[in-house]
Amino acid sequence: MDEIDVVDVAEIDTESPVLVEGLPGVGHVGKLVAEHLVDEFDSRLVRRIHSQHFPPQCTVGEDGTTELTSAEIYELEADGVETLVLTGDHQSQTIDGHYKIADRVLGIADEADVGRIYALGGVATGELVEEYGVVGAANSETLVDEMSEHGVGFDEGEPEGGIVGVSGLLLGLGERRGFEAACLMGETSGYLVDPKSAQAVLDVLCDALDFEVDTEQLEDRAEEMEEVVKRLEEMNQEPGGMGSFPADDDLRYIG
Amino acid sequence: MDEIDVVDVAEIDTESPVLVEGLPGVGHVGKLVAEHLVDEFDSRLVRRIHSQHFPPQCTVGEDGTTELTSAEIYELEADGVETLVLTGDHQSQTIDGHYKIADRVLGIADEADVGRIYALGGVATGELVEEYGVVGAANSETLVDEMSEHGVGFDEGEPEGGIVGVSGLLLGLGERRGFEAACLMGETSGYLVDPKSAQAVLDVLCDALDFEVDTEQLEDRAEEMEEVVKRLEEMNQEPGGMGSFPADDDLRYIG
Amino acid sequence: MDEIDVVDVAEIDTESPVLVEGLPGVGHVGKLVAEHLVDEFDSRLVRRIHSQHFPPQCTVGEDGTTELTSAEIYELEADGVETLVLTGDHQSQTIDGHYKIADRVLGIADEADVGRIYALGGVATGELVEEYGVVGAANSETLVDEMSEHGVGFDEGEPEGGIVGVSGLLLGLGERRGFEAACLMGETSGYLVDPKSAQAVLDVLCDALDFEVDTEQLEDRAEEMEEVVKRLEEMNQEPGGMGSFPADDDLRYIG
Amino acid sequence: MDEIDVVDVAEIDTESPVLVEGLPGVGHVGKLVAEHLVDEFDSRLVRRIHSQHFPPQCTVGEDGTTELTSAEIYELEADGVETLVLTGDHQSQTIDGHYKIADRVLGIADEADVGRIYALGGVATGELVEEYGVVGAANSETLVDEMSEHGVGFDEGEPEGGIVGVSGLLLGLGERRGFEAACLMGETSGYLVDPKSAQAVLDVLCDALDFEVDTEQLEDRAEEMEEVVKRLEEMNQEPGGMGSFPADDDLRYIG
Repeated sequence: MDEIDVVDVAEIDTESPVLVEGLPGVGHVGKLVAEHLVDEFDSRLVRRIHSQHFPPQCTVGEDGTTELTSAEIYELEADGVETLVLTGDHQSQTIDGHYKIADRVLGIADEADVGRIYALGGVATGELVEEYGVVGAANSETLVDEMSEHGVGFDEGEPEGGIVGVSGLLLGLGERRGFEAACLMGETSGYLVDPKSAQAVLDVLCDALDFEVDTEQLEDRAEEMEEVVKRLEEMNQEPGGMGSFPADDDLRYIG
Repeated sequence: MDEIDVVDVAEIDTESPVLVEGLPGVGHVGKLVAEHLVDEFDSRLVRRIHSQHFPPQCTVGEDGTTELTSAEIYELEADGVETLVLTGDHQSQTIDGHYKIADRVLGIADEADVGRIYALGGVATGELVEEYGVVGAANSETLVDEMSEHGVGFDEGEPEGGIVGVSGLLLGLGERRGFEAACLMGETSGYLVDPKSAQAVLDVLCDALDFEVDTEQLEDRAEEMEEVVKRLEEMNQEPGGMGSFPADDDLRYIG
Repeated sequence: MDEIDVVDVAEIDTESPVLVEGLPGVGHVGKLVAEHLVDEFDSRLVRRIHSQHFPPQCTVGEDGTTELTSAEIYELEADGVETLVLTGDHQSQTIDGHYKIADRVLGIADEADVGRIYALGGVATGELVEEYGVVGAANSETLVDEMSEHGVGFDEGEPEGGIVGVSGLLLGLGERRGFEAACLMGETSGYLVDPKSAQAVLDVLCDALDFEVDTEQLEDRAEEMEEVVKRLEEMNQEPGGMGSFPADDDLRYIG
Repeated sequence: MDEIDVVDVAEIDTESPVLVEGLPGVGHVGKLVAEHLVDEFDSRLVRRIHSQHFPPQCTVGEDGTTELTSAEIYELEADGVETLVLTGDHQSQTIDGHYKIADRVLGIADEADVGRIYALGGVATGELVEEYGVVGAANSETLVDEMSEHGVGFDEGEPEGGIVGVSGLLLGLGERRGFEAACLMGETSGYLVDPKSAQAVLDVLCDALDFEVDTEQLEDRAEEMEEVVKRLEEMNQEPGGMGSFPADDDLRYIG
């Protein structure tokens, strides 16, 4: 097994597709959007990326069969828009692995003649979000301007810590390889899996790429999460409750 | 010294043996079963695997002599069933090491014409177990069906976090190299070395491979552990006791 | 992308410049001085150093555009003194990366015919500093003597733990490659970004290299920090305050 | 710079010397003995080992000059016994580095025609030691027997966790390369730098190698440490004291 090992599950048929990346991260926002696209449209798996930088494990499916941990690239037409979607259960567990995997993804994007990359994620606000804004960054001024027109906020130098992981590298390394790439980050508390934030990001993406998609599934998950939040808040207000919300790191990414 | 260094201690004489893996993990269930097989049957060491991914140390034997840390492969006939057993004191200390060591083990299995792999382990329930079930996963549907007939439970997508370490990779990487591999995981609290859970796994293995083995030693260890648990519970109920059991991470893997 | 990847942004025109290093570290002293030089003099970016040992991320600029994480080398004439300045937002995240990046910087210094290296940093005293001394170390006795004449203190074997990170390696590896290198460390509490300590280091550097520079910006930042410290001290003295200052690791590098 | 870089400072003149290793570890026992030999006998530095697995730093000497972190090999005649002494300020910071550095040391030992290796260290008892025993392990039964005659204790399988770091690997890897190697571990609390434990180990080494050495310096350091312990105990017994000794991990390796 090589350090990174890409299995060609099927040929890529799209021409000059956009690449949408949604791997796990803050509020799992990016992953929720990516999986939603894969679920809602007629998608097929084209690449499976294994790597010695992913956690050493297999996943167990509903039928009890296992699959070596991987990131996956799906091909689909989103309402006519040719799209590759990169998603998966894990990011690299090592620092150099992030670079190497992002580099490999860009190689695949290059072969597939990808023109533009949308890296999706969340940005933690530290408090429960009332209005779900989408913050952006892009690797060219033109793209910053274009995204602004679709309602993306560009706050001076935000997020301050930069964009970490594969999303950040698809922009940073992507620029060096000639890709136009934008990062769309849904505002989210940072404490919970956040389907509402995912909806906000999806709205921007639909607007930017000019396609429509049913969002009922995301809305259902959002309602479930609201129930979870309500129960947590009630627990907080009980005598002997946690006092402030969230009181515990363990609440992170409840979902 | 290479990154992984396999010493051929003796020739492998068995033809098409099964490979049983039991390295340290949750409740040390897999290791207990593997060592029990090595102890109960007429076994001999055939391979010693050293690696720069194992902890940098030597073990000290009862006679004061030392041995460089290793995983070991033993050959034995379990009541007529030709078997290789992989066991040892450590798993890889690095992420890529897990992949590389599993890959190397599969290489050895390939040379030895191994047909099927049983990866043994425990699955943590977080509470003291009353009835010791065995949960499974396998890298083919046929094998899932077959294991079901031997009383293995296949709960939808359980364990949720997947199967971590060498066990998970023997299934995941094994599939890619054409091995049929099943993982048998004994339910265990996750807080203690658990010979009872090991017995449950061993029962399934005996049933699946059609051999019998004396389990007195495991039963004795199980009784010792029950004494330990009883003492811990008494300490809990004393004034000033720990209140709830287990109160402390330090209780993990008492044994 | 290579493990370390140096982009030649512009040609280096200076002849036999000095190299001044100021990467993040204790009190961000070295970085403050390095950035001050880049800001105050007419500087231009000549090298951008990317590395798989830097955090996997991009930074976001004020206009919303991104840049792959890097260290940068600027060229400038400090009041007539030809100077290369190495600065950036991060040090290596891995142990071997520190060595490899320092080695690469020395290679660039070699090509640029650098004669002498000044590695700038802070040394933590653990308490608020009243008088800002500058402690030194150098990779030759001659240089120790020379620096002493510019008011640098050489306390027997201080700092006791040695000099860690790129600064330490520019001296240690630099010696092996024939560079004269001195480390100038401003005394600082270790709890806050410290522009006053940076001023003290800058004073020594001006004296040693015989140039002058406006320090108004650093003085302004120092006043801002004094306001921060004052507020923190007031919070400490309130009932229910933190009691001692600093009470919390989180105060480190407030700024 | 290579991953490991050995500088030949001087030729090795001894023939078939013993190699004594004393790098930092439990109670700094091994390092204290190794440094004592280097100080007491007419020693000269023959090898300096740099490595990207050592902490990325330089040390600062009493005169303010710096030295890239290294382990060192000294040559000396201990009362007629030709000896190489390996000592230094650090062990490897990575897992594979331990293996690679130990391997390289064995390579040097091979070239120098070393016959026997003594790896020195401490074994933590967790409580203040009254009688300083020396526990041993060796990579051959003959050597276990021989060491027993010099008062070394071989307790069944102790230390239970094995011997970690370079000491363990000099025995484990050394055996594979044909070296006879013994580890001598002085009993020590594990909380303090322990010159008394070092004296006990030195006594065994003198007896085994048949040489004598002045131990006044070690005795002086032992008295200083006793003063430290006394003060700590007094602090413990004061109202508001720490209650039990040692109450805090921070006391580890006070010295």
